[in-house]
Amino acid sequence: MHPLDPIFKPKSIAIVGASRDPRAIGHQCVKNLLDSEYKGKIYPVNPKADEVEGLKCYHSILDIPDEVDMALIVVPAKVVPAATEECGKKGVKGLVIIASGFSEIGRKDLEDQVVQIAKKYGMRILGPNVVGVLNNPLKANASFAPYLPYPGRAAMISQSGALLIAMDARTWVDHVGISHMISIGNMSDLDFADLIEYFNGDKDTNVISLYVEGINKGRKFLDACKKSKKPIVAIKAGVSKRGASAAASHTGSLAGSAKIYEAAFKQGHVVQVENLNALFDETMALALQPPMMGDNLLIITNGGGVGVLATDAAEKYKIPLKDAPDDLKLLMRKHMPEFGSPKNPVDLTGMADRVNYEGSIKDALKHPWVDGLVVLYCETSFTDPMNIVKGIYNSIKESGVEKPVTVSLVGGERSIKAGQWLIENRVPYYSSPHAAVRAIAALRQHGKFMQKPIRDFKGYNVNKQKVDAIIAKMKSNGRKLLTEPYAKEVFAAYGLTVPKGKLAKTEEDAVKIARSLKYPLVMKIVSPDVIHKSDAGGVKVDVKNEKEVREAFREILDRVTSYDPHARIDGIYVQEMAPWGTETIIGTTNDKQFGPIVMFGLGGVFVEILKDVTFRIAPIDKEDAKDMIPEIKGYGILRGARGQKAKDIDALADAISRLSQLAWDFKDEISEIDANPVIVYEKGLCVVDARIILKDNR
Amino acid sequence: MHPLDPIFKPKSIAIVGASRDPRAIGHQCVKNLLDSEYKGKIYPVNPKADEVEGLKCYHSILDIPDEVDMALIVVPAKVVPAATEECGKKGVKGLVIIASGFSEIGRKDLEDQVVQIAKKYGMRILGPNVVGVLNNPLKANASFAPYLPYPGRAAMISQSGALLIAMDARTWVDHVGISHMISIGNMSDLDFADLIEYFNGDKDTNVISLYVEGINKGRKFLDACKKSKKPIVAIKAGVSKRGASAAASHTGSLAGSAKIYEAAFKQGHVVQVENLNALFDETMALALQPPMMGDNLLIITNGGGVGVLATDAAEKYKIPLKDAPDDLKLLMRKHMPEFGSPKNPVDLTGMADRVNYEGSIKDALKHPWVDGLVVLYCETSFTDPMNIVKGIYNSIKESGVEKPVTVSLVGGERSIKAGQWLIENRVPYYSSPHAAVRAIAALRQHGKFMQKPIRDFKGYNVNKQKVDAIIAKMKSNGRKLLTEPYAKEVFAAYGLTVPKGKLAKTEEDAVKIARSLKYPLVMKIVSPDVIHKSDAGGVKVDVKNEKEVREAFREILDRVTSYDPHARIDGIYVQEMAPWGTETIIGTTNDKQFGPIVMFGLGGVFVEILKDVTFRIAPIDKEDAKDMIPEIKGYGILRGARGQKAKDIDALADAISRLSQLAWDFKDEISEIDANPVIVYEKGLCVVDARIILKDNR
Repeated sequence: MHPLDPIFKPKSIAIVGASRDPRAIGHQCVKNLLDSEYKGKIYPVNPKADEVEGLKCYHSILDIPDEVDMALIVVPAKVVPAATEECGKKGVKGLVIIASGFSEIGRKDLEDQVVQIAKKYGMRILGPNVVGVLNNPLKANASFAPYLPYPGRAAMISQSGALLIAMDARTWVDHVGISHMISIGNMSDLDFADLIEYFNGDKDTNVISLYVEGINKGRKFLDACKKSKKPIVAIKAGVSKRGASAAASHTGSLAGSAKIYEAAFKQGHVVQVENLNALFDETMALALQPPMMGDNLLIITNGGGVGVLATDAAEKYKIPLKDAPDDLKLLMRKHMPEFGSPKNPVDLTGMADRVNYEGSIKDALKHPWVDGLVVLYCETSFTDPMNIVKGIYNSIKESGVEKPVTVSLVGGERSIKAGQWLIENRVPYYSSPHAAVRAIAALRQHGKFMQKPIRDFKGYNVNKQKVDAIIAKMKSNGRKLLTEPYAKEVFAAYGLTVPKGKLAKTEEDAVKIARSLKYPLVMKIVSPDVIHKSDAGGVKVDVKNEKEVREAFREILDRVTSYDPHARIDGIYVQEMAPWGTETIIGTTNDKQFGPIVMFGLGGVFVEILKDVTFRIAPIDKEDAKDMIPEIKGYGILRGARGQKAKDIDALADAISRLSQLAWDFKDEISEIDANPVIVYEKGLCVVDARIILKDNR
Repeated sequence: MHPLDPIFKPKSIAIVGASRDPRAIGHQCVKNLLDSEYKGKIYPVNPKADEVEGLKCYHSILDIPDEVDMALIVVPAKVVPAATEECGKKGVKGLVIIASGFSEIGRKDLEDQVVQIAKKYGMRILGPNVVGVLNNPLKANASFAPYLPYPGRAAMISQSGALLIAMDARTWVDHVGISHMISIGNMSDLDFADLIEYFNGDKDTNVISLYVEGINKGRKFLDACKKSKKPIVAIKAGVSKRGASAAASHTGSLAGSAKIYEAAFKQGHVVQVENLNALFDETMALALQPPMMGDNLLIITNGGGVGVLATDAAEKYKIPLKDAPDDLKLLMRKHMPEFGSPKNPVDLTGMADRVNYEGSIKDALKHPWVDGLVVLYCETSFTDPMNIVKGIYNSIKESGVEKPVTVSLVGGERSIKAGQWLIENRVPYYSSPHAAVRAIAALRQHGKFMQKPIRDFKGYNVNKQKVDAIIAKMKSNGRKLLTEPYAKEVFAAYGLTVPKGKLAKTEEDAVKIARSLKYPLVMKIVSPDVIHKSDAGGVKVDVKNEKEVREAFREILDRVTSYDPHARIDGIYVQEMAPWGTETIIGTTNDKQFGPIVMFGLGGVFVEILKDVTFRIAPIDKEDAKDMIPEIKGYGILRGARGQKAKDIDALADAISRLSQLAWDFKDEISEIDANPVIVYEKGLCVVDARIILKDNR
């Protein structure tokens, strides 16, 4: 038995706080369980009532003669700890705490107290501040939402209670089939990760659908997603700056940056959707259809106009149409009048009837080139949409192949009815062409995820001890900023290429070091008090000979001293000047929710003006780093633009991966790493400037 | 009487090609006119029939005893010329040619023939290749679409017939009210511009809604849009590369670049929408609600979740939320429980009932800060959506102010019914929060258009004669490319700043010219055969003194001669070197549909890698050019990034406007202008390199 079975497969449910007042939530929960025809046992608990909705009511949960799997807690917040204690004594396994008034209004203390009590008894908690659990397989509406959702195979988990109730009603309109609808509330104990893990193993569920405002344990979430064999689809609310702060105040959990969530979803193989309609649309597609295992999308239509709109949508949703092979075109020709078009989209023309649809769909699905199919139909005066969709269904069935199909019917009531029939027969229907294309793009996304198995991070063989020693030394000196010589030592220990160089304490030192290096050189001030070296006049580039080394040494010291007379000066770093190449940036930060994050971007205006950067949750291996690089808008520059040769993408991916490992290995010590610029060449790269900031010691 | 009244307000309609066969379009048209209860006269015409659907059928249109305003032509393509001739003789004023088989299948000749005949008789043509005209005010379904659309005040014009029929059905589901639905077909005579002009003056219409695949007479379209006092909303199909080519094959009209249409829509004050759903949604909003005349959007919600989603959508659709003023917050506080939030979104909480909605909406609309309102409602178990929407409606009415409101109800059947009631009461309803926000963003867009009156292009005082003379000289020399000295003379004649310089024929010449200029100089080969001067070794920069002038002169000649021994060499251009600044590009092209187009972008990687450019249909004045500049992604660089001062936006706008005037004045002569780079300074700018390509002389 799974530890969450008492909550999601309860044989008996107690309602602690059951009420005789029909307006009270404690009453609705009892009534809803009865109305939904739950077959398990229902035990209302209320010290002041003997009967609720015709059921015997117990004055204490301890009075219940039978075992209780799950308790719905609907008493006021302040008595929830006592109720939890009683549940524990009774041997209840799972609590669904509907009561609100906890961390969402700043009462984290009260919430913690409840969690502690539950832990003592080995009870798991869903909530507090939830609507409840709507359980279609058990026909158990253990919530104050009015009825169970439209039955099906998607587990939908919502961080907003009001939205959950509204979506519950909407499933009946959109015919999106649901196994469980779960309000996740404050996530004091069970969170998204726990539920993903559970529903991944649930035989009644084949897709997991999330409305996410904020995730506290990002790493745990990511791991659960990675382990899921079932498709996960999610909308992240609060992707705008203001939206993020609204989400934060709304759920009491901190919503991280939209870009970090995007990265986590990508790494966790979660299909992220753009709005609420898309959440419903893509949940349906993933529940009803197989994944799309290649890029070859064919569109069949009876209207050129919707064909063009679908073509636009295909490009927008990153599954651009290609020309079909000639033999497929020849096959399509059979199913259309002379003025039809066998290209992609295949235009059967407005004259198309059921026979044309059936024939073309069957031939298309059977053709090895086709990986997925979007069927478009414009309602016409001489065809019956119901007849058309039956043709669509038959041809899919008779084709005998497992390829995804989505359908758009543009029209009125007759088309809507026909669409519902399609859905009931497991073919997703949408009212607009772009939605049908977006849905198959989600199936393609899931297919791509399946084709790219999640690997464990192996890591490079690095000199971790050396880094340990440097950090220990910095800490003992009370330093938070690793100056360049140290940062470069750290980088070198992790196998990153840095320019040859050494710290000079005196002018003579500098000359001696210069003799061991190749001109031209760069000389930079090294001081824990000077972060922006150039602003302080602390950098000299293109130093060409010994005379210039001496001049530069004096000049830098002069300038920095007049810039900040109190700056502690460690010396001047003398290094070889890296040749000209493409400037990139690799950085890491330590995110509150997700821990170490690695960032990559092009230098200069790309990062400063265009914010053209991409993120991953660290660590990532070289293969994953390679996926990051083409995500930036300026990728063309690295690929070799303006008559230049391509840059060393492999070396770059290697560097990103090594830095991500460094951030991960020292996640408790390092707050930020900034390798900027990292100059990339046709062969190899060089980390020219480096900065590492340690975490504050508490 | 308007010349198009015979088509859109016919008192009598003949159906030329009326048929007794119920499956024939020529039959359906007669039946549809009868079924729709058209009050005018209906005259079937068919040489072989005496009666169709109970109406007397005439053997020739000439036999009809009465006047005929409009004729629907449903005979085969090859007999359309003869039918047109007869209509002309009869004195018919307007033809709606449903027949297909013309330019859309390459028979432009046949189409031209029909147009010529119609012209002879002063008849206007809608079509050929149309579905017909669906006319709600007259209750005339003069088409083969099965029934009239849901009645209302939007004129919807579609370039796809199949889509029109499907959208007709859909208006009844979405409750989008339509005055006329018109299939525009091949646009052999009447095009979008004509219809926009007509419906701008039609008392039954208050918004014009377009499905556009391609426009042939771009300039005429733009002018008609500019003159429209009514909002215009449009979807451009074929915005992807493949979609554009599909659209072209589909309608026989060339679909220009998506960016050029975007520019034309912007300049014509057309609200462009992203997909078919949005076309319906925004048509409804613009038909039912006043424009939004400021940026202050308030959102009122009973669910935090949908509030966050709406906040995200507001940012996406460029109407980001701001904090409401304190007095408004105080007012909102009155309508919510203690744990509600008076911020923007205003969260009335899940406890909100009709009274809370009514009170908060009324107070919000009355508050001077609020320019527009989005009301969100999540269906709850204890509220009746119908009751809520009645409250919403009442509060809008009682507020007594004219501000736009859109509503999203998330829920099931009850919410949908309530939404329909709202629409019937002229309040647009949507099923998802992002659609409600997108709709109010369209109302804001329209408001912005209204606040920015369209000005006539006045033009600068320029030396047109000089340019005339230069172009004449080039033509007489058989030259298509204006070499740099000439191009710069042209630019100077149009008031653009170019570096001081002169053409040197000999080395001594060069030295003499150099003495009249300020060092450093740039020297460039001038040859009609060398377009890429740098590649040919034909450019020397940073020439510092007389000795270097001589060296450069010889070196350039040597290099170019060895690059191309046959190149005709006019000499070497000696000019002052422009100081370092921000590189931009201004260019013009001559678009097939729209004529001269001006383009602006930042130089270097911005244009080459990121394609970061923006377009306008030329000419534009300085004010309009100023609007272009912030549209590029790299705008931050001009505004003054990386510690630099802002660049001279005013001078840049001036240069864009002047170049657009040049392209417009010489639209019959000049094919392309390329000012690249245009270096912009804190004060002023300089066109450093210039190229003008003339049109081919036929």
